[in-house]
Amino acid sequence: MEEIGEIDHIAIAVKDIDAALNFFVEIFNARQVTDKIELKEEHINFQFLEVGGLKIELLEPTSASGSVSAFLDTRGEGFHHLCFRVKDIGKAIEKIKSMGLKIVGENLEPEDYSNRYAFIHPKNCFGVLIELEEK
Amino acid sequence: MEEIGEIDHIAIAVKDIDAALNFFVEIFNARQVTDKIELKEEHINFQFLEVGGLKIELLEPTSASGSVSAFLDTRGEGFHHLCFRVKDIGKAIEKIKSMGLKIVGENLEPEDYSNRYAFIHPKNCFGVLIELEEK
Repeated sequence: MEEIGEIDHIAIAVKDIDAALNFFVEIFNARQVTDKIELKEEHINFQFLEVGGLKIELLEPTSASGSVSAFLDTRGEGFHHLCFRVKDIGKAIEKIKSMGLKIVGENLEPEDYSNRYAFIHPKNCFGVLIELEEK
Repeated sequence: MEEIGEIDHIAIAVKDIDAALNFFVEIFNARQVTDKIELKEEHINFQFLEVGGLKIELLEPTSASGSVSAFLDTRGEGFHHLCFRVKDIGKAIEKIKSMGLKIVGENLEPEDYSNRYAFIHPKNCFGVLIELEEK
């Protein structure tokens, strides 16, 4: 579908961003792209790295609330989602829904340091949680 | 560590490559990079796609034997591994081991259509199975 752009990043859920950051810097020559930033409404911190030509987002929970904490409880640390850029999130959501896919975690009025985003349910995407980010 | 190169691909384990391929083509404008190829010794088929600037490998089991079938039984479909290119797999393995990380699934004499590869145990990599491929 024409609304979909490039892959922006993959995200990894971890218990401790600093420990994961040190690991990816030491072994895989990662470079920090952002500082660690708190997203209060999601109960997480996130930090972007550049690793071997790909942008990787590290996610850690800041409380037992929120989906990343629940993810760690259920699945443990590991791959969390794959993000595609979209020019118009509204159009993309409409198109995705019209194809019978389920949108979850839609946020069209996010905090200032985040773009508008939505996720497609992993059951519709062969087990992969896919984020669409307006960018 | 200097032995590590760029990220080559991410891999997704699925039950049916053809169904997943159709999905990624239709929704995410994927382009086929290879045909579906059987790796008999691993009891899998694999196929590479290019999706939004990233290479994605689809993996499906060809029998109930092999690690991908076991992965699907345990985790279900979804993200399987992240692959970095390395120039000298022998040196990379030696370095990784010297850092106390565990190598699993090392294959230094693979079938003709595969490069030499090894995996680092996901317990050492924040839950992410990481492949090193000589390329």
